[in-house]
Formats: sequence, structure tokens, C-alpha cells
Amino acid sequence: MLQMLCLRFLLLLFFLGSLGALLAPRRRRGIAPLPAPYLTRYLTQQIDHFGFDENLTFQQRYLIADQHWKKDNGPILFYTGNEGDITWFCNNTGFMWDVAEELSAMLVFAEHRYYGESLPFGNESFSDSKHLNYLTSEQALADFAVLTEYLKETIAGARHSPVIAIGGSYGGMLAAWFRMKYPHVVVGALAASAPIWQFGDLVPCGAYFTIVTNDFKKSGTGCSESIRNSWNAINHLSSTDAGLQWLSRTFHLCSPLKNLQDAAMLKSWLSETWIDLAMVDYPYKADFLQPLPAWPIQEVCKFLKDPSLSDKLLLQNVFQAINIYYNYTGEASCFDMSETATKNLGQLGWYYQVCTEMVMPMCTDGVHDMFEPQKWDFEALSDECFKLWGVRPRPSWILSMFGGKNISSHSNIIFSNGGLDPWSAGGVTQNITDSLVAIVIPDGAHHLDLRSRNPCDPKSVQQARALEVHYMKQWIAKAKHQH
Amino acid sequence: MLQMLCLRFLLLLFFLGSLGALLAPRRRRGIAPLPAPYLTRYLTQQIDHFGFDENLTFQQRYLIADQHWKKDNGPILFYTGNEGDITWFCNNTGFMWDVAEELSAMLVFAEHRYYGESLPFGNESFSDSKHLNYLTSEQALADFAVLTEYLKETIAGARHSPVIAIGGSYGGMLAAWFRMKYPHVVVGALAASAPIWQFGDLVPCGAYFTIVTNDFKKSGTGCSESIRNSWNAINHLSSTDAGLQWLSRTFHLCSPLKNLQDAAMLKSWLSETWIDLAMVDYPYKADFLQPLPAWPIQEVCKFLKDPSLSDKLLLQNVFQAINIYYNYTGEASCFDMSETATKNLGQLGWYYQVCTEMVMPMCTDGVHDMFEPQKWDFEALSDECFKLWGVRPRPSWILSMFGGKNISSHSNIIFSNGGLDPWSAGGVTQNITDSLVAIVIPDGAHHLDLRSRNPCDPKSVQQARALEVHYMKQWIAKAKHQH
Repeated sequence: MLQMLCLRFLLLLFFLGSLGALLAPRRRRGIAPLPAPYLTRYLTQQIDHFGFDENLTFQQRYLIADQHWKKDNGPILFYTGNEGDITWFCNNTGFMWDVAEELSAMLVFAEHRYYGESLPFGNESFSDSKHLNYLTSEQALADFAVLTEYLKETIAGARHSPVIAIGGSYGGMLAAWFRMKYPHVVVGALAASAPIWQFGDLVPCGAYFTIVTNDFKKSGTGCSESIRNSWNAINHLSSTDAGLQWLSRTFHLCSPLKNLQDAAMLKSWLSETWIDLAMVDYPYKADFLQPLPAWPIQEVCKFLKDPSLSDKLLLQNVFQAINIYYNYTGEASCFDMSETATKNLGQLGWYYQVCTEMVMPMCTDGVHDMFEPQKWDFEALSDECFKLWGVRPRPSWILSMFGGKNISSHSNIIFSNGGLDPWSAGGVTQNITDSLVAIVIPDGAHHLDLRSRNPCDPKSVQQARALEVHYMKQWIAKAKHQH
Repeated sequence: MLQMLCLRFLLLLFFLGSLGALLAPRRRRGIAPLPAPYLTRYLTQQIDHFGFDENLTFQQRYLIADQHWKKDNGPILFYTGNEGDITWFCNNTGFMWDVAEELSAMLVFAEHRYYGESLPFGNESFSDSKHLNYLTSEQALADFAVLTEYLKETIAGARHSPVIAIGGSYGGMLAAWFRMKYPHVVVGALAASAPIWQFGDLVPCGAYFTIVTNDFKKSGTGCSESIRNSWNAINHLSSTDAGLQWLSRTFHLCSPLKNLQDAAMLKSWLSETWIDLAMVDYPYKADFLQPLPAWPIQEVCKFLKDPSLSDKLLLQNVFQAINIYYNYTGEASCFDMSETATKNLGQLGWYYQVCTEMVMPMCTDGVHDMFEPQKWDFEALSDECFKLWGVRPRPSWILSMFGGKNISSHSNIIFSNGGLDPWSAGGVTQNITDSLVAIVIPDGAHHLDLRSRNPCDPKSVQQARALEVHYMKQWIAKAKHQH
């Protein structure tokens, strides 16, 4: 647990990484409605595309919906699944469902290996580093390429269907990389909120937290300062047993804090909460992950107006604030800090990816951001990874593989980013060429553009979606012209 | 031995594949002069770029020559080593040495893993399929990318050096694929005699042998017909012990033929000889592999004018013909049929590659070509591979990975092919786009353009080289413009 805690502090999780655990029970209760019917299929894939000694195969799950597809080589929108159950992405990528009719498109949602049901070694998939060895972005992209070609070969009328990759977050990175590495398979890619530059020293390691902080700064007077001051308040209180008890009571924790390590965990949990809020700072009441009000950071900040309060008053306000996030419906009786992380397979897999390829340097300084200062510590990450999995990360590999900032010879990729989304720090926010274009949605949080149309959508996301459709139509028309 | 024989019959070897064994002893005798001084270096590379469980490294050898390099970001010509010792390619790619001064270029020759000295597991590299598991084109390309980036980072004045990949045959395929997959690393590629389309059903499986046959047809009246008739002559004679003895004597074989299997081996050996001659049908006396006269097929065909001769007279002529190839200097006392294959590590490695990724369908029909009819038999290859290495080939993988004929979205690749070269059957011989260009050298055999300038060079190869330099200068100028 401690190991996991340290690791958790070193790396930042993507969207589902930190919120997925909360999601699963809600969906089981059947709250989230399915957007449209789809078929669930499976394709036999090589476990190792890049070597021949391991010749076993596994079943990759994919979902397919062709209600609006024009059979005569109509386009295919291909969702490049990320670190989680594909049905969740299918149900939360309303954009694809919204545009399917206009584009006469088939929708395909491909599950990423080692997530959801697509487990190369079944229940043994996470048992050790031997079984985890085939969990890489390259293998996932190869799965996508093989699946796409299979669909075009086997579905009547799809042989010349132009395929467009679509993904958000890590899935957005995969969409962009899919186009870069397999341009013969996909004619273009929409990479939403894809921090493809959050590697090496391509962007400052603190930029991410500066954006989180700015979101709070903009959402209410005194808000980010209150949070910045809260850390010392916790430090003061956690130095005594009485203080620890007070903190446990005040934050309604299911397991009371016992020592400084537990207090560090409280701070880590609060930090994650602020970060998650920055990702889901959507303009309307959302019920897809946590039930949240519109512009939740503004709601949270209503409790955090006075940073100069005494420690206890300040922290009581912090509790009121996070209560919005964790208990908007008033159902929770106590909070379990471990609930946000390390619970489901998706997270286990993502941790392994962070411990190998997905090394995204992150740091805080407490000046440009509202967090306690923490340097990027690669060695600590590497040691944790070695303890956990017996592997060490290779931070330069993704740069060698995918080119870092030197990607101008590629084409037909839309990089969309929300101005409120901390992941935009590592994203492409300026046009690179005529066909490697950036769309910035100032009022958007984490891939807002991929969500369903909503009456409360700000104009900027409406325009972004229109532009995205415009580019996709161009690619489709050009592909048709070539046949 | 029988297994190897079958395999050998099913697959065709590249240049060094079939001739490398002959070359090694010659070079040891010091006949081939070194074109220029170079330094030998080694870089520590991951054995597995695509997985993290195997974290061992190996030393990749590369050769470097910077006599003509302009230190201020002058270009680097990067030879993508193929299936053999890199010093051999270094010494036989005179083109790079010839143009280094004009381009102010540094020359780098990178050895392909599992060949020459670049053995991931030393002497154990070929011991079983576990150790061979990392012998793939993808791993080799990753080595090249990592090496290139290392050179640019560590050599003073090379940070912005444009790098151009150059290779011939399988190395030419790697050069093209290097540009396709790592366009951020190399600004362009010269892919000489690179049969990137000799996969799947992209080209007819018999086209290769039709070209071999045409080379002989053009080189002398009755020549290809004589060879075509020779197979039945051997069949007739090998049906009796006396005939087998006669064949053994006539062909000066070191080990006499004992049965039909041995006779099949004789036919296989002769077939390989004709094929090899088609690859090295150069316009001048060449002493780099076998000492051969100029236009060796014309010399060979002088003995093969009358296809209507009796079996014995015909085969005596065939012996005279191949004597040109194997015994131009008159030094050989007897011929060892096993000498052409299966001898050195290079070949062992290449067999493994053919048994995994490099599945190039080949067939003969005896009508459009001068060989005995033989269908492409994937099952037989697959079974042989399974017996030999415990692996089975995946014939569609290279197509999924590198796009088959659908490569128009890439850029800056020159595909050069010789009209006499059988491998041109699987090559790109027509322009695909403005920057994916084909150069055909009608009088050229296997990557003649990569050889040193020679007074007997036909005009077509001189023009080809000039055009290649022209394109390279364009890429270099454009790269400079971007910095």
C-alpha cells in the first residue's frame, strides 16, 4: 500500500486512471444509459506482434455499430481504446454517436489489450512481469492495425472504407500515433486531449499543475490560495494525535489517520481530487462519473473564499468543498481514500505502463501552483517500479519511437485541447502544418469535444466539433477520390 | 541437411544470403581492398525495444568515417545494415564513399543485430528460438533510430545534421521502412534494389524467375532453353547409378551423388547459381564476391547455345558454364554444393527471418521461366520452420506493419532498381508521388548503383546516381532551411 501510495504521488493518472474505480459500481446500478445499440465482437490477436517465440493468441473485444453506415465504402470511425473497459468509452464518447449519421459512418470501439475483457492471459495477465510483457502502446497499435484490416477485409462493402482514428487522453495519443505509424490503415486521426508531449523535457514538468491552479484561481476569489494554505494546516494538525483525530472526523474518513504517512495520504487524496476536478470542469451538470454540478470548480470555490482563516476553519471549508465532489447526492456516510486508486485492473495496467513507456515528468513548486513543492524524481519512480514489477522505465523510448516534437512530416491529425484541461500542458496547441492542426477549446476541460452534444455546451466546443467534422469530411472525400 | 535443403528450395536468398559463404574466405585472404579508413564503434542497445521484461543489452557495432564531414551540421549518410557482417557492406557500398566529399557527409554503417559482431546473446544467439526472439526488422529499425539519435546527441556539431538512410536489398527495404516509421530521425532514404512488395500477393510469385530467365534469354541464343532442358537431362541420368556417377564426375563434385535426393540438390545448386548470376550480372570484371568477367551471363551463355543437344553433351556444357562462376581463376579442384548455403551466421539469421517475418512467395512454372515448375508452398515452409526453430511464419504481418502498396502518404524515398535484377520484380519501379520516386537502371543488376564508380559503368547507372545525389541534396537543403 505504501509503495502504491508513493507511486501514486509520483505519477499522475489519466482520466479513467483516477476515476474509473468510482465509476464501476455506479454503472452496475444501471444509471448511465446506453447511447445506442452496438454489437460486441472479438478478434483473435497475437499476444506478441513483435516476436515469434510467444505464439499464443488472445481475444480482443471490440464494439461495432453500423446503423448509419453507408455500405458502399462509407467511412469507419475507429475509437482507439485506452486504459479501461471499452464499453465505458463507447458510452462516454457521444461525439461519435452524434456525428455517425452526418458522416454515414460505422462506429468501432476497440478495446486496449490488458483492459476490460481483452486480457491476454486471462486472470494471470497481471500476475508478473512475464505476463505483463506485452502491455505496450506498440502492441496496442498493432492490435488496432490488424483489427482495422480485418474489418475492411471481412465486412461486405468496407474494403475501401476510409478509417478515421478517434481517441481521447491516452486514447488520443494512440489515435495520433496510429496515424503516424500506420498511415496506410487510417486516413486521419482526431486526437482529443492527447498529451503526446508530456515526455522527456518537451514541456516544463510543472505546467500541468499551473493549469490546475489557474482553473481554481479563475473560479473564485481566494480559492487557489485556500488550497495552497491547506497543506500547512494539515501539517500542523497531523503533528499531534488529537490533530489526527480531528482531521479524521472532519474529513469523515472511514479509516482514521494514525500517523504522518496517513496524513500524507490525505494530502495526496486531496491533491488528486483537485486535479480530477480540473479535468471534469464541465459546463453542465454531469452524471457520468461522479454526479457533479455544472462548472464544479466554481461550486467548490464557493467554500474556499478566505485563505486567511485558521487551520481548522480552513480545513472545514476544504471538506465542504470536496464533499461536492464525493458526495453531491448526499449518500456517502464516510470517505475511503483508497477508493480513488489502485482498485481495478485498468489502474494496475496503467501503473505498469507508467513504469515502462509512459514516463511523464511532473513536478510542483508551490509558487506557480497551489500544491506542496515536489520535484520530479525519476529515480524514485524507477525504484518503485522495480519493486512492484521488476521492470525499470525507459523514459527516452517514447521519444525515439514517436518523434517528440519533430512530427511535421506526418499528416491528417487534429489535436484538440481544452484550455481548462491540465493535460493540455503536454498537448499540441498550435498548428504544426496545414494538416497537423490544433484546436483549442478555451472553455473545455478534458476532451469535452468527445462528449455528447449538450444544450449548455459553450460555443467554443460547438465550433471545435464542427471543425473536426469538417476535417474528417475532407479526409473522407480525398480517400474516395483515390478509388 | 535435408531440412535445410527443402527450406533452401522454398525460399530465395538475398545477395549475401547465397554468396556470403563464398565471400568470407576470400576476404580473409585480403584480396578486397578497403575503400577508406573508418572507425569501429559499439553502442549499448536494448535487446528488446518492445518489451520490458528482458532488460539485457548488447553491443551494436557501427563504422564511422568523417573525413569529408562538414562539422557544422553537415549531413550523415546512414547505411542500414542488412543480413551480414557490416564491414562487408561498408567495403562494397562504394557509392557512399564516392559521394561523401560532394555532400560533405559523414558516413555511418550500422550493423544489423544478429549479424557480424552484433550478437545479442554472443555465441548463444542462435541456440534456440528464445534467443532468436529479438531478430526482427522492427527491432533492427529501433536500433537504427536509437543509434542515429545517439550520434546526433553526442557528436559535436551533429545535432541538426540531416540523416539520410541508404541501403541495398534487404538493407534497402530497411532504409525505406526506416524513413516510413521514423521520419523524425531520417529526412529521406535511398532504397536500392529493395523488394518491399515481394510479400503476400502484391506481385506474381513467378515474376522473379521470369526476370532471371530473361537475363539469360537476352544474353545468348539458346541459353535459357539449354538451362530449361538441363533439368530433364539430370532427371534422366540420375535414375541410374551409372548416371549419378557420371553426373558427379562431370560436375567435379567433391561428394559424389548417391540418390535422387542428391540429384535434387544438384539441381537446386545449379538453380541458385543461375539466380546468383542474374544478381551479379555487372558490366565489368568484378572481383568482390566471386572473381567474374564483365557481363558474366554472356560468358556463361557462350557454352549454352544449343538446347537440342543430347543429355550428356548438354550437361557438359552446363558444367563449362558454371565453371565460369565457381572457377574463373581455375583454382578449384572440386565443387562443394553445400558451399553456397547454410554456412555462416548471416545465413542462419536470414533463415530465421524468412521463417518469421520475411515471407516472400516464389514460384516457377517452367513456361515463363527456365526452371522446373514449383508452386509456392507456404505450408511446407511453415512446417520446415516449425521443425527448425519452433516458430511459424506470419505472412501478413509485414503487410500490416509496412503498408504493402498503400504507402503514398510517406515521402522522400528513392526506390532504385536494376532491370536485370530479379529482385526488381518485388521493387517499386514507378513513381508513387513526387517524393516517392522510382529510378530504373535498365542495364543494372542487383543494386549496381550502390557500387563504386567504374569506367565501364553504363550511362543508365551514372544517370541514376546523379539523380540520387540530386534528391539527397534537395532533402539536405530543405532540412537546413528548417533550422
